[in-house]
Amino acid sequence: MFSVTVRDHMLIAHSLRGEVFGPAQRLHGATYVVDATFRRATLDADGIVVDIGHAADLLRSVLSELGYRNLDDEAELAEMNTTTEALARVVADRLAGALGDAAQDLDGLVVTLHESHVAWASYERQL
Amino acid sequence: MFSVTVRDHMLIAHSLRGEVFGPAQRLHGATYVVDATFRRATLDADGIVVDIGHAADLLRSVLSELGYRNLDDEAELAEMNTTTEALARVVADRLAGALGDAAQDLDGLVVTLHESHVAWASYERQL
Amino acid sequence: MFSVTVRDHMLIAHSLRGEVFGPAQRLHGATYVVDATFRRATLDADGIVVDIGHAADLLRSVLSELGYRNLDDEAELAEMNTTTEALARVVADRLAGALGDAAQDLDGLVVTLHESHVAWASYERQL
Amino acid sequence: MFSVTVRDHMLIAHSLRGEVFGPAQRLHGATYVVDATFRRATLDADGIVVDIGHAADLLRSVLSELGYRNLDDEAELAEMNTTTEALARVVADRLAGALGDAAQDLDGLVVTLHESHVAWASYERQL
Amino acid sequence: MFSVTVRDHMLIAHSLRGEVFGPAQRLHGATYVVDATFRRATLDADGIVVDIGHAADLLRSVLSELGYRNLDDEAELAEMNTTTEALARVVADRLAGALGDAAQDLDGLVVTLHESHVAWASYERQL
Amino acid sequence: MFSVTVRDHMLIAHSLRGEVFGPAQRLHGATYVVDATFRRATLDADGIVVDIGHAADLLRSVLSELGYRNLDDEAELAEMNTTTEALARVVADRLAGALGDAAQDLDGLVVTLHESHVAWASYERQL
Repeated sequence: MFSVTVRDHMLIAHSLRGEVFGPAQRLHGATYVVDATFRRATLDADGIVVDIGHAADLLRSVLSELGYRNLDDEAELAEMNTTTEALARVVADRLAGALGDAAQDLDGLVVTLHESHVAWASYERQL
Repeated sequence: MFSVTVRDHMLIAHSLRGEVFGPAQRLHGATYVVDATFRRATLDADGIVVDIGHAADLLRSVLSELGYRNLDDEAELAEMNTTTEALARVVADRLAGALGDAAQDLDGLVVTLHESHVAWASYERQL
Repeated sequence: MFSVTVRDHMLIAHSLRGEVFGPAQRLHGATYVVDATFRRATLDADGIVVDIGHAADLLRSVLSELGYRNLDDEAELAEMNTTTEALARVVADRLAGALGDAAQDLDGLVVTLHESHVAWASYERQL
Repeated sequence: MFSVTVRDHMLIAHSLRGEVFGPAQRLHGATYVVDATFRRATLDADGIVVDIGHAADLLRSVLSELGYRNLDDEAELAEMNTTTEALARVVADRLAGALGDAAQDLDGLVVTLHESHVAWASYERQL
Repeated sequence: MFSVTVRDHMLIAHSLRGEVFGPAQRLHGATYVVDATFRRATLDADGIVVDIGHAADLLRSVLSELGYRNLDDEAELAEMNTTTEALARVVADRLAGALGDAAQDLDGLVVTLHESHVAWASYERQL
Repeated sequence: MFSVTVRDHMLIAHSLRGEVFGPAQRLHGATYVVDATFRRATLDADGIVVDIGHAADLLRSVLSELGYRNLDDEAELAEMNTTTEALARVVADRLAGALGDAAQDLDGLVVTLHESHVAWASYERQL
């Protein structure tokens, strides 16, 4: 199995609902350094998993719809707690959608959001 | 599949038994930067894999029983060579025990011990 | 010259005032991974620049007054743009104050705030 | 499952064939920081996955046959595009060969080539 | 003193002239992860050292004139050995030129080129 | 001013004397990831600060005299507390000695010992 990973980041504000979150129930924010990993059993005719420049552009596009925003105000995220692990799925699912037909050649996708040097979360899905 | 990882570290002394270890048969030591990854198929009602603060506390607690010690003197480790990979299992198994009932909601655990910028070892187990 | 550095982090929300900031004029947030470096020409009787545990506690204390907050609502920061470089000075100055008499033995302080894997800012001052 | 990883690097020149590669069709080069991960279900009598010094020597040996070279001139690579993902397989397969009989005790091998701080590729195979 | 640093990278081929370089006399290549640090004694009216987006664009522009090339073929570099330390000066000097009048507000510039996880070089100059 | 840095590491056991060290008064150990930075105002005829391979060999040699040992048993270190900052000076001074006549061409030396992902210490000296 092959994989290719590209890294980018986004800066967001948000708050979390639930006593378990303690001070993170207050409005605060985070830098998420985001790794998107594309998996594929065999390489294509060019010898690649995915055009790495195209993959980076797709990730940039998905993150730019979330970045520099207060996620508490985003209608599409209103029903959920925007925890690191939940956002990893949002990014992965949007990235899968953005891949379009190219997703058919891929086997899976992993998105990891690093929220600090000591904590990160991932979501892995098939394509 | 979702996962959440927390990072901490411990400082220990030890020696290794066996010719394969060369100079590491002498008493020496290591900083282990430890990553504990908790895996779960679906998020809970709060939208999390595990309370990240609680996970960090559990890891801190497990590492504090090993850190600032000479592992050669620890009765519970007397039967084993405390290699990086073997210690990864010790930390994972103790962490699984410390999780208590919370382990039932999780699917797996991976513990990685980084012994330097050029070498690390992991142990992965189910919960 | 000797130095000792400790690393910690904080999660904040804020917005920046001025056209130069583009989309960062919107309410967003950041994780700042914060490095505090203490400089000293000679070591003390214990062979240290500063008690590293005490230094880490002081940094933790300073960051806990800023973290998990919307900096736009902090009265003490109302007059300023909370850019990464300006916050580096805020942290450094508060840390210098928190050091109390211990600052007399030190020669300088550098605080670096990493806002992502591709951008960071520092403020260096004497003690 | 246990794993042990060692890290090394190589410096190479190459060019890539195909319009998808844009400016990377020109002769350029890369530093590949290479992680080789050895997987094993149970530890051996010494409590290890593999002798980490031996593993590092094998990786060094494999990389030294590729490093400080223009890969466009290497006869064994003439049929392929030396993309990061394709080179990950070359390194993994050569490493598997270099392991010799020791491969029988191992369950798998993952080789990751980091081409920059924002892009990397992996190849995973059984042993 | 304040500073702001932005990170980017370039991929180049080159060879080095002189017996001291051993196998690096052959045509090979490198990824240089490049950090550009801008220093300034006081912040401007917006509370910044430099517009970080503008700084990143300038660095990108300077690196794009070197990246995806064989430096042995670049007329402007023909007189020199393109060692990591020498290239750090090339990048710093071109960046200083690209800053134009904005350089007058700055006090200094440091450019660091990371050639691997175990080696890097810097050049520091005034502005 | 130019600089070149090489990174290596050592694994040691030790204990620290003094109440300020708390649990670190017990025999424990550390991995020190060591960065040695060589400074020079102008490059030599080959376009380098120092032969990076030679610099790496010297650092390896200095660290091999300390690594895989219990520093409490080293006669040359008996008079001192082997704190991270004090060991940074030991490494720097031994490295300066090992440079021999080559030190005359250099302006300074900085040695940084990383004891974990959240703490490190440096010693800077002239040559």
